[in-house]
Amino acid sequence: MKYYFEADPNIDFDKVNNVVEQAYAEHGSGNVQMPPKMYVNFPHGDFRTMPAYLPAMNIAGVKIVNVHPDNRALHLPSVMALTLIIDPQTGVPQALLNATRLTDMRTGAAGAVAAKYLCPKKKEIVLGLFGAGRQAETQLEAISRVFTVTELKIWSVDQKLAEMFWKKYPQHDITICSPERAADCDVLVTTTPSRTPVVKSEWVHEGTHINAIGADAPGKQELDPLLLKRGRVFVDDVEQAAHSGEINVPISMGCFTQDMIAGTLGEVVLGKKRRNSPEEITIFDSTGLALQDLAIASIVMKQGKSIEIPFYT
Amino acid sequence: MKYYFEADPNIDFDKVNNVVEQAYAEHGSGNVQMPPKMYVNFPHGDFRTMPAYLPAMNIAGVKIVNVHPDNRALHLPSVMALTLIIDPQTGVPQALLNATRLTDMRTGAAGAVAAKYLCPKKKEIVLGLFGAGRQAETQLEAISRVFTVTELKIWSVDQKLAEMFWKKYPQHDITICSPERAADCDVLVTTTPSRTPVVKSEWVHEGTHINAIGADAPGKQELDPLLLKRGRVFVDDVEQAAHSGEINVPISMGCFTQDMIAGTLGEVVLGKKRRNSPEEITIFDSTGLALQDLAIASIVMKQGKSIEIPFYT
Repeated sequence: MKYYFEADPNIDFDKVNNVVEQAYAEHGSGNVQMPPKMYVNFPHGDFRTMPAYLPAMNIAGVKIVNVHPDNRALHLPSVMALTLIIDPQTGVPQALLNATRLTDMRTGAAGAVAAKYLCPKKKEIVLGLFGAGRQAETQLEAISRVFTVTELKIWSVDQKLAEMFWKKYPQHDITICSPERAADCDVLVTTTPSRTPVVKSEWVHEGTHINAIGADAPGKQELDPLLLKRGRVFVDDVEQAAHSGEINVPISMGCFTQDMIAGTLGEVVLGKKRRNSPEEITIFDSTGLALQDLAIASIVMKQGKSIEIPFYT
Repeated sequence: MKYYFEADPNIDFDKVNNVVEQAYAEHGSGNVQMPPKMYVNFPHGDFRTMPAYLPAMNIAGVKIVNVHPDNRALHLPSVMALTLIIDPQTGVPQALLNATRLTDMRTGAAGAVAAKYLCPKKKEIVLGLFGAGRQAETQLEAISRVFTVTELKIWSVDQKLAEMFWKKYPQHDITICSPERAADCDVLVTTTPSRTPVVKSEWVHEGTHINAIGADAPGKQELDPLLLKRGRVFVDDVEQAAHSGEINVPISMGCFTQDMIAGTLGEVVLGKKRRNSPEEITIFDSTGLALQDLAIASIVMKQGKSIEIPFYT
């Protein structure tokens, strides 16, 4: 069994965007297997188990990822992930991958694919970011392969984090600003861990596309529920989004229902569903699919560094 | 991260029986987390993902196990397993375990615990086995730590496998015989991959305890449905048993219902449920709990051989 141990296998975002888009197309065509993400809860965190099979890429496996928000105090990452790849033909364990960085990257790629298909502008955009952590970085890196980002406006509750972000990307014209100003953009990406809305509907102008990334567990939400009604909501997976995505709180409060979902990103990639007009506000509710993890694993298994670890039968 | 790579870590069955019994007690008390086993199906096999958290042993993780029945032709095991252990406090991956042999052992231990509590005899038993593969071996090894097996009767469709079993255990008085004769015993253990009943009700006398081990996926069954009505059925987990255990086919055919389940093995271990009389036929429907995998992992992590593999954050 090969173990791809690198924290950052340094793969190109064009490749990641490409395979993640393929994975969404397969999801949209129904030619995949992906049981819903399972949560196991600890007193101070949780872990999630994400199995899937992507026949078009002949790859299957499971990602296991934790979320422990208090880890920063222990100087540990709050999110860490491993993916185990199983040979579909024999069930033999083929590979184990350090998937922490890969998880950020494939989430960035999902945002890029959503913006590519749903933003009415096709070349140059003003990008707004709520949150300035690792997720914000990979959203920017993936999205800037699809669009020229002419201006970047970022808001974070953590001013220091926003300044670090600003320093990290000197090639971009970045303004650290109020949330209201950051929300005035073409593509708005929210990557906060918020449990109450941080984006007000009145801040968002017509024609904006929003990637709602942060909400990934029951109780989390980032957007004013009014925005969900004003815009059209696309999800990565209906069951997962209803359980733990941006729409989970509005659904549990009775102000959003599953039949209000406009479609899945897979359907959008396949051209079955689309933005109706340039004025419409579109929202992509991302929870993260095990299929994206398999797609990015397929790249790492071609070019990543690995060590052989024994699997005795 | 430690990798416990050994195919057979050579742990004592008394220890395994003991921790598996503890895990059942925790399950019976409800002080555990264990989402249902998830299946991903391939054209010629499947894999199952089994996450759980056992607070009493401070252990959490996921077992991933495949079933590829055609693997024998490729000189590969049909079942292979790995368990990943996650630190409940931080989510850090603590250990990876080769869990193929451990899966057989913890299943053997489940059979031993069930027989210990449900067989009316407490010292010496006649053991009947249907099937002569790895599962039959670990059932014998675990059960013979609880009872003196005075006579062992084995039936298998594969005469050669039965003869190998006979040779492997010279210390036991073993007879290879007809299914009817093998079913005439105190504890009957079925470990076949059958999809049609192999045990007829009229072969089973009063007071017999049956461990129904083989049925672990939808469509599989080993027992005459009449036996389920004649006896009382205990399960390891109600949801899993209804989905993929011995009762799954009778339930889908409408001749068994969940409310006919007498209880879980956890409830039996806690003394909340029990055999009603020495004459009763009791059946333990085993599907395999992720909690058992965590319990046996806790032993291996104390005494097994491991190598250190890097997990970079």
